[in-house]
Amino acid sequence: MTVDVERALAEVLPAEAVITDPDVLAAHRNDQAEWAPSGMPRVLVRPASTAEVQAVLRVATALRVPVVPRGAGSGLSGGANASEGCIVLSLMRMSRILEVDRRGMLAVVQPGALNGAVKAAAAEQGLWYAPDPASWEFSSIGGNLATNAGGLCCVKYGVTGDAVLGLEAVLADGTVVRTGGRTVKNVAGYDLTRLFVGSEGTLGVLTEATLRLRPRPPKATTLVAAFPTLVSAGTAVCDIMERTRPSLLELMDRTTVRAVEDWKPMGLDVEAAALLLARSDAGGPQGEEELALMVAACERAGATSVMSTADEAEGELLMGARRFAFPALEQRGATLLDDVGVPVVRIPELLAEVERIAERHGVLIGTFGHAGDGNMHPTVVFDRKDAAALARAKEAFDDILRAALDLGGTITGEHGVGSLKRGFLGAQLGPETLRLHQAIKSALDPLGLLNPGKLL
Amino acid sequence: MTVDVERALAEVLPAEAVITDPDVLAAHRNDQAEWAPSGMPRVLVRPASTAEVQAVLRVATALRVPVVPRGAGSGLSGGANASEGCIVLSLMRMSRILEVDRRGMLAVVQPGALNGAVKAAAAEQGLWYAPDPASWEFSSIGGNLATNAGGLCCVKYGVTGDAVLGLEAVLADGTVVRTGGRTVKNVAGYDLTRLFVGSEGTLGVLTEATLRLRPRPPKATTLVAAFPTLVSAGTAVCDIMERTRPSLLELMDRTTVRAVEDWKPMGLDVEAAALLLARSDAGGPQGEEELALMVAACERAGATSVMSTADEAEGELLMGARRFAFPALEQRGATLLDDVGVPVVRIPELLAEVERIAERHGVLIGTFGHAGDGNMHPTVVFDRKDAAALARAKEAFDDILRAALDLGGTITGEHGVGSLKRGFLGAQLGPETLRLHQAIKSALDPLGLLNPGKLL
Repeated sequence: MTVDVERALAEVLPAEAVITDPDVLAAHRNDQAEWAPSGMPRVLVRPASTAEVQAVLRVATALRVPVVPRGAGSGLSGGANASEGCIVLSLMRMSRILEVDRRGMLAVVQPGALNGAVKAAAAEQGLWYAPDPASWEFSSIGGNLATNAGGLCCVKYGVTGDAVLGLEAVLADGTVVRTGGRTVKNVAGYDLTRLFVGSEGTLGVLTEATLRLRPRPPKATTLVAAFPTLVSAGTAVCDIMERTRPSLLELMDRTTVRAVEDWKPMGLDVEAAALLLARSDAGGPQGEEELALMVAACERAGATSVMSTADEAEGELLMGARRFAFPALEQRGATLLDDVGVPVVRIPELLAEVERIAERHGVLIGTFGHAGDGNMHPTVVFDRKDAAALARAKEAFDDILRAALDLGGTITGEHGVGSLKRGFLGAQLGPETLRLHQAIKSALDPLGLLNPGKLL
Repeated sequence: MTVDVERALAEVLPAEAVITDPDVLAAHRNDQAEWAPSGMPRVLVRPASTAEVQAVLRVATALRVPVVPRGAGSGLSGGANASEGCIVLSLMRMSRILEVDRRGMLAVVQPGALNGAVKAAAAEQGLWYAPDPASWEFSSIGGNLATNAGGLCCVKYGVTGDAVLGLEAVLADGTVVRTGGRTVKNVAGYDLTRLFVGSEGTLGVLTEATLRLRPRPPKATTLVAAFPTLVSAGTAVCDIMERTRPSLLELMDRTTVRAVEDWKPMGLDVEAAALLLARSDAGGPQGEEELALMVAACERAGATSVMSTADEAEGELLMGARRFAFPALEQRGATLLDDVGVPVVRIPELLAEVERIAERHGVLIGTFGHAGDGNMHPTVVFDRKDAAALARAKEAFDDILRAALDLGGTITGEHGVGSLKRGFLGAQLGPETLRLHQAIKSALDPLGLLNPGKLL
């Protein structure tokens, strides 16, 4: 069977695009969610064109072999983890930026282009590609699309899907479809663009995207505020969202602040229950006015300290605390990075519940994330060598998902379901909506060959 | 058969919810696209709850009767036009605003609530429901969702779909599904919310929506500029979009300007090739700075006159010209209001082609619309009593769709495909993407009972 698949692929692809070297295969069996289940792929293919992707999917369909599409492998939910005996389809040779249309304010790119490369190409034309997952320097646009990746700026500028005008995708049977187009508004037919975005490679393989670019925003003003309680921080978040349009609104809890301060001492208030970081990029006097409104909201909510600046370099220094959040927690041990969303008003309840979960399971959990969107990353830290600690960490991880659902939230705000959280999807969606997912999956991929065991 | 259907409906609905009065049925056979095909409904039902909608759809499925869902009937593409012998399902008794959560910045509403009622309920809490189709005073949220309605402010704030956090829908077989939720970010599963939005009642009947509210923006600054050529107006539009974030950017061509000036003289430049109206709602000094940037862009592009004001009342006066555009054209005869989208850079080419189409068919076409989004409404004016004129108008209407497609655009930017444009959908999507639409339709509505003959 393996020989048949290889031979069939070798007939339709150049030799260098079909790889069976066991070391290379092993390197392509996981994304960053190492502890999610994965199997050994049968073969890795690296097509260089839509036609080659079609050829791979036709072989897969003819021989009934599962296909796991893959970008840069930076995913955090096991969405790109191989299943045993699958074809791993890497899109990383399709990494060209085909067009940047300055006047039309859009870019046409292949899925293997890194987010950072798209940002750079846009910047060359004086424009901005907004979506900024933390992985922007090393994650691919295709992966960003597959997970509908978020980031720091989406509190003002939306998630990846909000920046997509159109897509080209290859369905499981090799059919090429195009969705959307180059217009900003378009209601001709179903919104298949949005159906593919966030579908984690289970409905089709994305081979091209038309992305919306924006004018570069003005330089940001920045504030950092420390709060004595989670509730006071939550109050400030709501007030800021009601009164201003922050271009960033991030939260770090005490465990995270202490991890950062231990690793990179910068004089953070390690007694605070939470730190907020906020920015306005309204620019000029408006930016300063928004900053003043945000400072006032923090003070009214009971902040014990507020530092703010309209100076860009100083602002970058203040942002350092947030940028170090995850790496600082990683200094303390192995991590399970969770990704839940709750209504913004319920963030304090979520954080309090996470503290109880940490206590109950005897694990350390540092929480940070995108407070303005209610999207939090409770990060369970454990000793990698201690099997019992890993088990407790996994229990805590799952309890965090349950807590988010109990608060009317979601099991994933931006990382995707992948293989990690599929057991929880039904609990969030309910049986009827889950069945509807399966009906759509069957309509697009009747043989169930695309990324099996992910999302659904 | 009719008797069976009535009897079955009467068994599951209160008597007043099942209507067969021929005058009432006749009044429910069309939306505003009167000249699109329609048939006589068998019965009108007016359910008051999700359970009653379920009951209707179960009867429809059991007896294989088509169902045409309907909101306020303000649609412009025949999306709510009855098919012969169908059940018309009016959602207008489900018009409650169930909740406005000020801190959570969201509203939960039933589909029959008018857009204006949602705006008003949000405003009572100091918040803003952004989507503003021109019909906002008399169109329902359900209809706005079904067409993914646009409007004037979407150049900055997005279309209806951008304001939807979650939905409840009843599928053809009576299954109730819930999509999305109350969180801003949510990537758990496929984006079924966006699949239902814009699906024109062909995939399910929407029974509840969770809508995102925003802070009320500051008062807007306004400008009106006159341009000697279409190209110069197009240049100004692109420059404005590259440099600022207008909260409105509208265009009117000479034919439209003359119609307005004839009807409501206000000293508009009737020799100009096009007028632009633009607004900034950045507020304060920033709003004035954006206004100055927009004025400069107009002057640089060769505007022959630019009037601008930061005064709200004066701004409203200037906006009057745009508000009168369609009613002024209606003074000149019966109208076919088209709705096409092109990449913003191609607006001048579209308008020039529309002029050629008008000449070729010997009809009057006034064009106005949402220039910042490339979404234009060429409006064919003809003598209602002249059958030959109607035929020529229809040809012109169709040629406008072809022109938009030739320019890489869309046959509908915000009104929907309905029954009016379904013959053109395949030309836009191509056979593969059209087949994918049909596969999705079959997965959700295998008997094809929901709004047959619309969109697809």
